[in-house]
Amino acid sequence: MTEKKSFALDAWSARQLAAVEQALMRWVAPPEPRPAPAGLGDAMRYAVLDGGKRLRPLLVMAACEAVDGSPKAALRVACAVELIHAYSLVHDDMPCMDNDVLRRGKPTVHVKFGEAQALLAGDALQALAFELLTPEDGSVDVATQAALCRMLAQAAGYQGMAGGQAIDLASVGKALSSEQLHAMHRLKTGALLQASVMMGAACGTASAAAQSALRDYGAAVGLAFQVVDDILDVTADSATLGKTAGKDAAQDKPTFVSLMGLSASRNYAQELLSQAHHSLKASELQRVEALSALADMLVNRPA
Amino acid sequence: MTEKKSFALDAWSARQLAAVEQALMRWVAPPEPRPAPAGLGDAMRYAVLDGGKRLRPLLVMAACEAVDGSPKAALRVACAVELIHAYSLVHDDMPCMDNDVLRRGKPTVHVKFGEAQALLAGDALQALAFELLTPEDGSVDVATQAALCRMLAQAAGYQGMAGGQAIDLASVGKALSSEQLHAMHRLKTGALLQASVMMGAACGTASAAAQSALRDYGAAVGLAFQVVDDILDVTADSATLGKTAGKDAAQDKPTFVSLMGLSASRNYAQELLSQAHHSLKASELQRVEALSALADMLVNRPA
Repeated sequence: MTEKKSFALDAWSARQLAAVEQALMRWVAPPEPRPAPAGLGDAMRYAVLDGGKRLRPLLVMAACEAVDGSPKAALRVACAVELIHAYSLVHDDMPCMDNDVLRRGKPTVHVKFGEAQALLAGDALQALAFELLTPEDGSVDVATQAALCRMLAQAAGYQGMAGGQAIDLASVGKALSSEQLHAMHRLKTGALLQASVMMGAACGTASAAAQSALRDYGAAVGLAFQVVDDILDVTADSATLGKTAGKDAAQDKPTFVSLMGLSASRNYAQELLSQAHHSLKASELQRVEALSALADMLVNRPA
Repeated sequence: MTEKKSFALDAWSARQLAAVEQALMRWVAPPEPRPAPAGLGDAMRYAVLDGGKRLRPLLVMAACEAVDGSPKAALRVACAVELIHAYSLVHDDMPCMDNDVLRRGKPTVHVKFGEAQALLAGDALQALAFELLTPEDGSVDVATQAALCRMLAQAAGYQGMAGGQAIDLASVGKALSSEQLHAMHRLKTGALLQASVMMGAACGTASAAAQSALRDYGAAVGLAFQVVDDILDVTADSATLGKTAGKDAAQDKPTFVSLMGLSASRNYAQELLSQAHHSLKASELQRVEALSALADMLVNRPA
């Protein structure tokens, strides 16, 4: 089903990520000229820098490219969505939530810096995301700034990521229907992944039809990501994942694999990938190679 | 030192607060038409509704009035700053932070809903604050939306409230210099109080000189608030405060009272009040009665 095999995703990603990593280093609580107080900056940077697949930033940059948008604006958006993702991991790993000690192969933030500092670092990262979206340097026009803040707030909040985590929390040890499992993931991971696509697209202009198609692409990719995550939780080991494998089953969390089995989950992921490609075609946008290749990559990723 | 004694603050406040409470009920995770998932909305509303002095919303409305700004925009700003304040209390009360069980005379959010839900409710409230600032209904122009998001993000983040809390955390059991204590409170409570004034003023237009004077007013009021808070912690009882009294001393936290003594702290509060009044005069704005009366009220409040 993959299209445009000739597109070199690795080289494209490396180029984007070089810019993203550099921007994150510059923007996340820089030690100069005014350091964050009392070690807070260390915890914030530890949570964000030098780790993660940066899938959300890549989706932002790819969507911006698809609409020929402003790369300067997209770079801020890419960092902002990554900060929201990073803060959610910090809070999610805390003892009162998932109580995880390993993340990206390193001790989690609360293990390294203490729970209170982890709580504050997460809070500060969320605020910083909105600060990045509202520069005073004229690099992003104010109407776009406002739209981006709105999209990010909705994707992160009670009708988005935080809401999905609340469902997740309430569903441990419970049998969820397919509909309930979908609803949970649509919010928990899907909302921010979809927002990454839509916010990247908001860095340029797209027809209503193209926007609608990109929204469908984002929904398919967001769901596929979670299905594959559930598959990898049972098929990969901790070293490959960089986090504790088999945790979902150990915690008796409902997953796509526990609901539909491994084989059907794999088929479902491929079906969602087809939907994503179909949506890209329906968008009638020309430069969708990166979006297309990212969808392939995330469904077929080894870990 | 109080001016314009004839201004009826109680009636003015009651009018503003009626609007603010109604707006909060409408905007904080409304049960209709689409409830927040898995009880998250209940925790969010519990954290925000029916409690608190709403000092920050009153400062917003008063500053907006001073610059003859848009009351519609100010109402959103008033709710947004209150949501940031409320989320900070929820997280601050958690066991890994202050471990407080009583707030506004009621069990704290984590006592009532569990730690995980409290963590998520705080996170979702922060996101919601930015959502409130970015309506699509045309009630706030986009340039103002962008500026408001920027101001709120800076006031809430690592160079604002979260940074101040990190200093607070690191300072338990330590002797702080007067300078360090000021730096902590300028961030921890001062940043959001000052932002309330400046964001209220951003709902209209003010000269650079007036803005600068309002900034000074906000700084003086923000600091005075904390000095009075420290005084009340040793002079009022828990029932009056609606929270555990004497906690600072019990936790060996540095306060203005522990640093300079009770009598000098009282004098300092009055001095800051004079500075606030002086700044209002320097602003050359006409309708500053509410800002003036609020400064009086918060310095001379019984609890």
